[in-house]
Amino acid sequence: MVPSSNFHAPMASRPPSARQARRLWAIGDVQALDAHDPLAARREAFQLPVGTIYLCGNSLGPMQPGVRARVQHLIDIEWGVDLIRSWNLHDWFALPERIGARLARILGAGADEVTVADSTSVNLFKVACAARSLRPDRRRILTERGNFPTDAYVLQGIAQMSRGGTEFVAVDRQRISDAIDEDTAVVVLTHVHYKDAAMFDMAAITARAHAAGALIVWDLSHSVGAVPLALDACKADFAIGCTYKYLNGGPGSPAFIYAARRHHDAMHPGLVGWWGDARPFDFADDFEPAAGMRRMLTGTGPVIGLLALDAALDLFDDLDMNEVQLKSQCLSSLFFDLIEQKCAGFGLEEVIPDPPAPRGSHVALRHSEGYAIMQALVRRNVIGDFRAPDIMRFGLTPLYTSYRDVWNAVDVLAEIMSTGAWQAHEYTLRSRVT
Amino acid sequence: MVPSSNFHAPMASRPPSARQARRLWAIGDVQALDAHDPLAARREAFQLPVGTIYLCGNSLGPMQPGVRARVQHLIDIEWGVDLIRSWNLHDWFALPERIGARLARILGAGADEVTVADSTSVNLFKVACAARSLRPDRRRILTERGNFPTDAYVLQGIAQMSRGGTEFVAVDRQRISDAIDEDTAVVVLTHVHYKDAAMFDMAAITARAHAAGALIVWDLSHSVGAVPLALDACKADFAIGCTYKYLNGGPGSPAFIYAARRHHDAMHPGLVGWWGDARPFDFADDFEPAAGMRRMLTGTGPVIGLLALDAALDLFDDLDMNEVQLKSQCLSSLFFDLIEQKCAGFGLEEVIPDPPAPRGSHVALRHSEGYAIMQALVRRNVIGDFRAPDIMRFGLTPLYTSYRDVWNAVDVLAEIMSTGAWQAHEYTLRSRVT
Repeated sequence: MVPSSNFHAPMASRPPSARQARRLWAIGDVQALDAHDPLAARREAFQLPVGTIYLCGNSLGPMQPGVRARVQHLIDIEWGVDLIRSWNLHDWFALPERIGARLARILGAGADEVTVADSTSVNLFKVACAARSLRPDRRRILTERGNFPTDAYVLQGIAQMSRGGTEFVAVDRQRISDAIDEDTAVVVLTHVHYKDAAMFDMAAITARAHAAGALIVWDLSHSVGAVPLALDACKADFAIGCTYKYLNGGPGSPAFIYAARRHHDAMHPGLVGWWGDARPFDFADDFEPAAGMRRMLTGTGPVIGLLALDAALDLFDDLDMNEVQLKSQCLSSLFFDLIEQKCAGFGLEEVIPDPPAPRGSHVALRHSEGYAIMQALVRRNVIGDFRAPDIMRFGLTPLYTSYRDVWNAVDVLAEIMSTGAWQAHEYTLRSRVT
Repeated sequence: MVPSSNFHAPMASRPPSARQARRLWAIGDVQALDAHDPLAARREAFQLPVGTIYLCGNSLGPMQPGVRARVQHLIDIEWGVDLIRSWNLHDWFALPERIGARLARILGAGADEVTVADSTSVNLFKVACAARSLRPDRRRILTERGNFPTDAYVLQGIAQMSRGGTEFVAVDRQRISDAIDEDTAVVVLTHVHYKDAAMFDMAAITARAHAAGALIVWDLSHSVGAVPLALDACKADFAIGCTYKYLNGGPGSPAFIYAARRHHDAMHPGLVGWWGDARPFDFADDFEPAAGMRRMLTGTGPVIGLLALDAALDLFDDLDMNEVQLKSQCLSSLFFDLIEQKCAGFGLEEVIPDPPAPRGSHVALRHSEGYAIMQALVRRNVIGDFRAPDIMRFGLTPLYTSYRDVWNAVDVLAEIMSTGAWQAHEYTLRSRVT
């Protein structure tokens, strides 16, 4: 997890985990980092609003003109002219597996182990039911307390539907490993935490679950496109995740599902539909699950969203995810260094995993007035987001965030804190999002 | 259900159900029908490919330039510039209820009784679970045999998940009413059949279900936007349906859910997620269902698909659905008359409800070589679709189909049948769709 010394000379001697070894940064250092950044040219693929420092790609990735062009072609030609024939002419029906195969490389999975459908929540329901049914003699579904809530909500719904047959248990992060017992059917964990970005050791926890006879489901929403993943090598059972964050698929783009090949024949998602049938165009009365990942599909897929995602993935075809992670770690280290250097004494608390752990690609600061401070930042075109009650998040996305962006963003934050600009009345009103 | 005599003078004296009272049509009669068609101008809203007679709007409605413009604005401005702020600035979060309120008028429902999310299959799962849980002491979910299969598949999945607690029963159409008994928890019916377009008497069957103490779920996929609906007046309990057919929302556009207000406080969809929580931005560990329809939402909605649908509905704001249905009936009568007039002796069998029943807005012909014949039609730019084993379907969509279109389409069919053009080898290959 430590950046190698091959890139980014100014940081090479200082592992980002060694928080005590901070240095003072000068603008020239930051410019040098950008000049030597092998990912700098990737920014060209995106259309970012001029004058804005966008640090919210962990929530909604930005638009690529290539995606716009693909959607326009879909609307003008495929929908507009070819109409219903596009199911054949443009093979809309195969989009889930075709895009799944492209995602597989990013996930460290086989091309036949990934498909795309529905939302992350709906997909979690399906894989959790599938995993649950593979361990019928066990009662417990285990997850992390304080995780992004939709995962817990989905699992609570499953437990409620089973009328006592399934027990939902959420424990603190530190207790997860010990809580996996002989009554645990499924462990559901988010690989990178949505607040502090702490990252589980996927191989170790998966092995721990298997040692106890349980199956594991990984939620990769905050991991995919940000950190290298190796689902097959880690022997993961199931995974799901969303595509509108680091994969830049567009607002509400469809989510993915991974299932290890060894489970394909026996898995049953509970929620099924005609797209998951073995012969959907026979229109038979009785459901017969399709082979492989296809049985994880339900109804007709969201074609516009699927094609937008397909175009967004072009960027990833020749991308080395280790390089992405390396830059992410360097951006994060720079961010925290600059917070200490420029924002000392303002009451901003760095949110870091406790106990220390590898991290995903966003950083967070805690402040009791975090909501108002974030509003002031957004007003000044530094876009992060806010998670109640007191967390300011900043996505440091290596494909389009420069070191200079981080430098400038912290400058703006320092100015807001030193002048008290965030205390203006208009910033204290609460709204639902950000 | 009989067309009034106020419009369409040439047909006024002949109710379309009186199949024996056929007349011979001349091109001048058809031109007169178009000249007096009060819906003729609606075609201007659509961009239809030149030279094509599109009779497949019952499967995928065509593109409107207004939809294209709305999606382009979304991509360029909302996603491209405003980015994450669009959740507030453009109120993406409220799209499900805002679009739901627009659909409510078309459904005959209250504005607070409809929302938009996920696919029809996923939504059927949610409302069937919700209805099931409102009748906990009954075991049976009843549906029609030979209905569009996804409905049966979803219900079979629910029955399988409940491990014996729920019984799935499918009976022939004629036996539905008698089969509703004191053990029936939920009746799930598709209002307009996907093959013969037969339409249930919603008020009567709903009353029959209620008299037996059961709840009813209506699948309106082949009804919404095609025939007048009155969910509240019929005292329906739940309904779902898709929006890419007669509502022209675009390929794979999101589906809708209706729940009668009297069920809002007690209904629990089983499949839940953070968009259905009472306070999603509190990020609490325990799910608390939101009030009203919001609890039927799961994960983040498909924003591009939602906005495309929103734009597509502009056309319906001032539309009289009775007028739409009237034209649909006249188009259907003309179609069958012309089949008899021009295609006699070719072995084409009219598919009509048995026993006779009011119909939706598509017509069907049966022929053992229906697949090859439909391929030949499509090759000649008359676009219908095929449903195994032997059904050719033609959507007669009043908003953009003219009487002349029907005349021309039957002419092409007559030419194919009389010359045997459909027997060419290339047309006998089977493919998955159409």
